[in-house]
Formats: sequence, C-alpha cells, structure tokens
Amino acid sequence: MTPHDRDVADWWRTSIIDMEPGRISFRGTPVQDLIGELSFAQMIWFMVIGERLEGERAKLLDAALVAAVDHGPQAPSIAIARMATTCGVSLNNAMASAVNVLGDVHGGAGEQAVDLYVAVDNRVQTGLPLENAVQTTLDAWRKEHGRFVPGFGHRFHKPVDPRAPRLMRLVDDAANTNAVSGRFAAIGQTIERVLSAEKAKPIPMNIDGATAVIFAELGCPAPLARGLFCLSRSVGILAHAWEQVGQGGRNKGPTPPRYRWTYDGS
Amino acid sequence: MTPHDRDVADWWRTSIIDMEPGRISFRGTPVQDLIGELSFAQMIWFMVIGERLEGERAKLLDAALVAAVDHGPQAPSIAIARMATTCGVSLNNAMASAVNVLGDVHGGAGEQAVDLYVAVDNRVQTGLPLENAVQTTLDAWRKEHGRFVPGFGHRFHKPVDPRAPRLMRLVDDAANTNAVSGRFAAIGQTIERVLSAEKAKPIPMNIDGATAVIFAELGCPAPLARGLFCLSRSVGILAHAWEQVGQGGRNKGPTPPRYRWTYDGS
Amino acid sequence: MTPHDRDVADWWRTSIIDMEPGRISFRGTPVQDLIGELSFAQMIWFMVIGERLEGERAKLLDAALVAAVDHGPQAPSIAIARMATTCGVSLNNAMASAVNVLGDVHGGAGEQAVDLYVAVDNRVQTGLPLENAVQTTLDAWRKEHGRFVPGFGHRFHKPVDPRAPRLMRLVDDAANTNAVSGRFAAIGQTIERVLSAEKAKPIPMNIDGATAVIFAELGCPAPLARGLFCLSRSVGILAHAWEQVGQGGRNKGPTPPRYRWTYDGS
Amino acid sequence: MTPHDRDVADWWRTSIIDMEPGRISFRGTPVQDLIGELSFAQMIWFMVIGERLEGERAKLLDAALVAAVDHGPQAPSIAIARMATTCGVSLNNAMASAVNVLGDVHGGAGEQAVDLYVAVDNRVQTGLPLENAVQTTLDAWRKEHGRFVPGFGHRFHKPVDPRAPRLMRLVDDAANTNAVSGRFAAIGQTIERVLSAEKAKPIPMNIDGATAVIFAELGCPAPLARGLFCLSRSVGILAHAWEQVGQGGRNKGPTPPRYRWTYDGS
Repeated sequence: MTPHDRDVADWWRTSIIDMEPGRISFRGTPVQDLIGELSFAQMIWFMVIGERLEGERAKLLDAALVAAVDHGPQAPSIAIARMATTCGVSLNNAMASAVNVLGDVHGGAGEQAVDLYVAVDNRVQTGLPLENAVQTTLDAWRKEHGRFVPGFGHRFHKPVDPRAPRLMRLVDDAANTNAVSGRFAAIGQTIERVLSAEKAKPIPMNIDGATAVIFAELGCPAPLARGLFCLSRSVGILAHAWEQVGQGGRNKGPTPPRYRWTYDGS
Repeated sequence: MTPHDRDVADWWRTSIIDMEPGRISFRGTPVQDLIGELSFAQMIWFMVIGERLEGERAKLLDAALVAAVDHGPQAPSIAIARMATTCGVSLNNAMASAVNVLGDVHGGAGEQAVDLYVAVDNRVQTGLPLENAVQTTLDAWRKEHGRFVPGFGHRFHKPVDPRAPRLMRLVDDAANTNAVSGRFAAIGQTIERVLSAEKAKPIPMNIDGATAVIFAELGCPAPLARGLFCLSRSVGILAHAWEQVGQGGRNKGPTPPRYRWTYDGS
Repeated sequence: MTPHDRDVADWWRTSIIDMEPGRISFRGTPVQDLIGELSFAQMIWFMVIGERLEGERAKLLDAALVAAVDHGPQAPSIAIARMATTCGVSLNNAMASAVNVLGDVHGGAGEQAVDLYVAVDNRVQTGLPLENAVQTTLDAWRKEHGRFVPGFGHRFHKPVDPRAPRLMRLVDDAANTNAVSGRFAAIGQTIERVLSAEKAKPIPMNIDGATAVIFAELGCPAPLARGLFCLSRSVGILAHAWEQVGQGGRNKGPTPPRYRWTYDGS
Repeated sequence: MTPHDRDVADWWRTSIIDMEPGRISFRGTPVQDLIGELSFAQMIWFMVIGERLEGERAKLLDAALVAAVDHGPQAPSIAIARMATTCGVSLNNAMASAVNVLGDVHGGAGEQAVDLYVAVDNRVQTGLPLENAVQTTLDAWRKEHGRFVPGFGHRFHKPVDPRAPRLMRLVDDAANTNAVSGRFAAIGQTIERVLSAEKAKPIPMNIDGATAVIFAELGCPAPLARGLFCLSRSVGILAHAWEQVGQGGRNKGPTPPRYRWTYDGS
C-alpha cells in the first residue's frame, strides 16, 4: 500500500468492520461466529456499543426494542410510511421518509430521559440523597428546557401506559439477579413520585421513560437511545407500509378525498 | 361515533394495532404479553407477517438479520450515513438518508432472489424435476432481467462469501428437525451448481442468496425480503453513524480534502 | 498529481463544475458571469441540461416551474412536509421526507407523458399521420401500462384544470415566434381529442400533460421531467413546512387527535 | 359542511392555497394569473413569504439562488446524490437523501449569518454605532456558539470566494436605486473588516455571508435562508444525480473499488 492509498484508506477508518476477500469480521469476531450465535438484539448492541449483552441484560434490550415498535397510524412517522407507499416508491424509501421524522419531538424523548437520569445519577454519585438529586435536576431541566419532563405523562394513555409497568417489572427482575444495578429504575420511580406529588395527580412513567431506564441500566449513551428507538420504530413503520401496499391506493392523503382543507387566507 | 367519524377512521384502518387509553394490542395480543416474551426478531415477524415464529424458525430469522447488518464504509449506504452525521443532522436523519438508497441495486437482490426461488418452486410443484425447473427459470429470468442472477457470485468475496455457508448450515439443521421444508435450500444449491457448471468456475451463493433461502423457507413474500434487509442494514448504518459522531469532522466528503475531482468538461 | 491521485480524482469526474481556490466555473463559465445574468430558471436548465435557454423558451420553463409548485395539504408530499416540521426536524429534513415520495405515482406522470409524446413523435417522424400515430401509441401504451394515460384527466379538477390551458397558450405564443416547434403541443392536443372522443366526454389535458408539452418542446429528456417537477414542488413543500412552523404543533398526525383509526383485525 | 367536516378541514388549514374543482389560487391569486407572469424566483418568494418581489429585488433573489447551486462532488450532499442514483433509486429519492443532509453544519451557515446580521441591526436600531454593534454582537455570538463566525472565511476559496464580491456588487446596485436599504450590506462589510483586523489577514465574506446579506435585505426570516438554500442546492444535486445516471455504475462507493478502508479496531 502506497502513502496515497493510506491517505484514502485512513479517511474511512473504522473499528467496526474488517474485510478481505472471503473474510468479514465485526469488531474482531469473524461473521460466521456471530451468525447463529447472537440474537438480532445482541448483534445490535455488539455493532453499536461494542459489547456482548448476555442473559437478563440481553432480554432487557429485547424488551425495550419490542415495546416501542409502533404507535398507530396517527403517529406522523407511521402515517408518512403508509402514504409514501401509495406514491409509487419502494419500501426502503417509505421507511426513510418515516424514520427521518423521528426528531427531537417525535423520537427524542428517550434520549432526553436518559440524559435526565444520568444527570440525577451524577448528583447522587456526589453524595446527594436521591430525592434531593431528583428535585435539583428537575429544577435545572425545566429552567433550560421548559415544563415538559421527558419520559413522564402521556396525552393519550391515561392513567397508565401499559408498556411502562411491564418494562419496569423486567428491570426489577434483572436487578434482583444483579444483572443490572437497578439504580436508574430507582431514579425513574423517584421522578415519577416527585412529579405526581407536585401535580397532586398521577404523572406515570411512559414508554420513553421506561425504555430510557433500560438503556441507562445497560450503559447506553443518551444519543444512542434515539438510534435504538429508530431501529425499534422501523419495525412498525415497515409493518404499516407493507399493510398499505396490500390495501392499495394511489397518492393517499391524510384525510379521505371528499374532505377539503380550510383556507384561512384573505 | 358519527358516520363522519367513521369516514375518517376508516381511512386509516389497520389490523396491526388497536389502542384505547391505557390499552395497546398488536394483532390482537396485549402489548404487555409481548414485552419480555418475544425476542426482537420474533416481534419483527409478528408485526410484519402476523405470525409467531418459534424455535428453530425464529433462530433462522435471527441469523438472517445478523448476517446482513453491514458491508463497510465503501458501501454507499454506510458512507452516506457517516457523511450525514458530519453535516449537522441527527441520527434519525442520517439513518434515513442511508436506508433510502437501499434500492433495487443496493438492497433489492434478496427480494429478487426470493422471487427467483419461488418461480423455480412453482415449476417444481407442477411436476418438473428440480434441475429442469432451475434451468427453465434461469433462462426466463435472464431474458427479462439480463445476465446477473441475484444472490449468486460476489465481486469482492471470492471464492466464498463466508456468511452464505454458515447460513445454509443453519437451514440444513432446521430442515433436519422439520422446522422448515428445506426445499428452497435445495433450489438455491441447485442454482449454484447450474451456474458454476455454466461458467466452469465457482459462482457461489452470496449473502443475498442465502438470506433469501431463509426468507423463502419461512414463507416471507419477496418484497418483504427487502424490508427485512432494511431493518438489518439499519443496524450497521446506525453503528457507523455513531462511530462517525465520535470521530467528529465537518462536512466529510467522500475523499480526503486534498483531493480534487477530475473536470472532464470543455 | 500522482497516478494515485488521478485514480481517486477520476472516480468523481464531472463536467458540471470546475474549481480551484478563488475560482468556480459551471460548465465552463465563471460563476461570476452567471450570477446576475441568468435567472434561477435559466440556471436550472444550464446546470442540468447544459444549455442556455433564452427569451420565450426561458419564459416557458419559468411557467412550467411556477405551475406545479403545490397541490394543497391533502397531497401526500405536502402533508408529510407539514407533519415533519412538528416532529422536531429542520426544514431540510422536512423537505427531504416530502420530495422523497414524488415517486412513479405522485411525481412520475410528467415523465411518463414526455415519454408518451416522444413515442408519438417518433412515429410521426417515420411518416405516420399524427392521428394514427397517437392512436397506435395509445394502444401500445395501454397494453404495457394499463388504462391510465398520463397527463390527461383529473380526479378533482373537472371539467378543466385551469393550469393546462394557460400553459398551452404560452406554448402557442412561443410556437408563433418559432421559439419552439409546437409539434408536441399538437401531439398533446391530439391525444386530448382522441381520448375525449373515445369516452364521449371531455378528458382534458392536466398539469402534468401540459408541463410535459413544455419539457418536450424544450428538448428535456423524460426522466428529467420528474427532476424538474421535484424542484418545482419543493417550493410548495417549503412554503407549507414553513407555514406549519408558524402554526406550531407537536407530532401532528394526519387527522385531529380526537379521531381514532378503525381496527379491522380479529 | 357539518361540524365534523369542519373539524377535519380545520386540522389542515392554510393560507397558501385555495382549491375547488376547476379553480386554484395561491395566496388569493388565481394560478392562471401567476403562470407566465411570475418568474420561478418570484413565485418562490410569493409562495414562501407571501410578497411579490419586483425589479431589482427579484433580480437579487435570482442572483442568490443562482450562486449557491453547487459546490462539487466532494460536498457530501452532491456525493450522496451521485451515489444514490447508482443504487437503483429514482431522482426524487436521490434528491431527498441529499437535501436531507443540508443540516446545521452543511446548510445552516446562511441561516446563522442572517441571525447574526439581524442581531447587529437590532443593536444599531437602538442607537449603537455600527462598528460597536458589530463588535458587541460578535463577542456575544462567539460566547454562545464558538469561534466560527458564519458567513466569513472559506477553507478552500482563498483569498476570495468569487461569488461574494459579485453578489455584493448587485446589492450595492440595488441600494443605489433604493430597491433595498443597503444596511445589511454595510453590516456584512463591517463584520468582514473587523474580523480581518482581528486576525491581521483577510477573512473575506463567503457565499453564505453574501447570500445572507441578500436575504436580510429582502426581509427573509433567518430559518427560511436555509429553506431557500435547499431550493438552490437542489439544482446542483439534480444536475449531478442526472450526470451520474448518464455515467452509469452500480453501488458507487466514496472511493474507487480497489481501495479499502483502514481497520483500526483491535
């Protein structure tokens, strides 16, 4: 290899994949030793984070990925995927237009919740009691980001988002066997209690709050919580896009054709 | 609900998800009975196809999804994801720009291979011997689509794509326990033999040919093979996008900055 | 420059742009000689096709680009752009998700209409009378593509799409000064007459049929008709995305929040 | 129209477009009165901002849109568009993947520069001398955003980006006829002088700084500067995508196939 080759090769350096004719390895392991050995969820973690998740920990990741796949055709991402397939584009394109909108508002709550939990945990590590750490962190959060606390409350699933307690029970199980520490579960539950006390009504942890507990317990950096959510939601996006292919339709709009929009110009 | 409500509701009908405040079910099963019970791969199949995959069959799906996650930073999809993150967009956007290009050429070989296998199988079902059915189908395929046979040969992995034999061994194992019929494995192997005999050199089954055997054995409609590939490749896309975030960079181009392109205009 | 540099440089060869520090030229013309000289529409043609469009011909391109900017918030592309901005992504992302769905069904009619016109014209060039050439081409088209003839009829704008006659009058004006030949206008009008006679009711040329006449008169290859349409529709997409930013909203779905979808599963 | 219809219609209210069968109007003007009357650039402004730009002002917008169309195949957006077309997707998809990456870093400098100019102008409006207003604003800007000042300096075009002086001359011409006030031109030039004095070397205004002057002179809100840039750059994206279609290729990677990437894992 000449210096010039190296110049170009180094521009695209990676520690994820190594390849020669007839040989592929991911993070140092030959691909044939991963196929048939790792579940898809384990492979996701191995590729993205670089660690092997085993046993209870792998099961938690499966649970988080299973829980967030879909929120129905009135979620903008799902509606976009369904409309896209009727416009004459392929499944990959429909998935792209849909995943693309999982931005700060639609797909960012999990990321923000991990950030919030880690901020609490950092304060606890310095010796602050958990309740105080939560209160201090919530105050700081709202000062910077406004009144919404990511991961808690739901405009639709009242009083309880059925996914959250199920996920939290799995975290508890894993904490009982020391597969995870359980400290982010405690943080999440404390936030829930503090918020509910403030409002004098239940502000339960939602799906984003619960998956964020799992991601934090597993040691996932906050921005990746959004990436993992994108993988999870891609499943619902694909399922709906494919169902729409079966239903047919051409240039499906957001509402039935007989409706018009309101023109409010002059 | 008024007739007008129904009008609007029916426009977005689905059999994938049902929802009321506090209740979510996917294809008739409450979400809390899926979380912690299904692996992510099983959930993918359940959402998209509507069936529960169990045991060996689920393991085959895991294997297919694990095998196709990445092809390195010189695959356009991966390069796009890495460049995108340096342009100031989020992980969801980087994933979208990348998944979007998994079109007929980059992401369509698996879909086409399933189509090809099913066409052979249909001829076998009418009583044609396997070898004849393969030959007839290959002739028809090339007449319509040109000389490339999807799923066989590789411009880089010579003589053998290490993923294919590993996947095929798993299919054999599953066929031995009657978890799958094995007839699409036989079709794939026959195509490989016929092509190699034609060219008088090995034209081995590649990753697309092998995952297509699995998808066909599991009863997956051909277009969904592309959808499932998109889910799988999204993992590598995310892993590389995230690695690039760590490496930093601003407006990363395809080649190091000191290079220029060749202007071939007048 | 070493051979290796050349290798890399040649991989990205182009005749569109040449650049050195302090110097940029597009298709051989310094950028400072284009700025302030060419209108945006002229620059589009110059960049994409490589020709200078002048006078009446440039005005026709302006007209075609102006005519197709928007079809209202029930067009899937526009709805997608509006929903996207409420999900926490930027304008470039909203535009991308929307332009992405201008596929064969939503954005392909202009391209197909140019193809159709050129096919008629090719038959006319061989000596066939126009009416016969139209009939023969329509028969062949439907045999291959089904009963829809791209560019004619409109499910909403009955009896007349107001954009088409206006555009056709501009083409007539340009033909009268020999700025264009007018033969694709004649082809379009003949198709309209033949279709209306067949159905014994008016099947008027629509926006796609009329812009396709302009693109064909200007010598634009059919696939670029879709590209130019994407540029035009991007304007409406941006306008609606920006209006939605002003209206606010979070995770705007396709229908008001109080509506549910119909679950039709078991 | 029933209350329920209104409910749905109001969800998609807009003042951009009104439509009935046979009638379309944009911001209150029938479409047939816009076609053939407005240039494409004028239509862009009318749709997005809602005003008619005339004479010198329209010419400035044309100039800004012409200037930013392309930055060559080593810009990530252009490279993405070219790679995308070789993956078997359509022009609309290639454009989408490319426009999508015009994020804060790749496409946001114009938006940020408009913000910066407006911040200076606000200080000038309160009576601060221009030079002081620039210095105060630059200090505040860097404190919040870091050392890069958007719109000034170029890593490649040294000493001068040839587009900027040409654009600024057009602004001067327009100011001389009172078509624009010229005060944002003065702000831009003052920033350039202050920055160059600080560094004791020329830090010339670049394309983003110059188009931002135009957008600010025309009264364009800062976030729309990015939207308009997306429209402009879409032209180069389309031109390159189409050129690549002509060149052919399958799964074009960022570097020639003989290169490998550097594996830097363990």
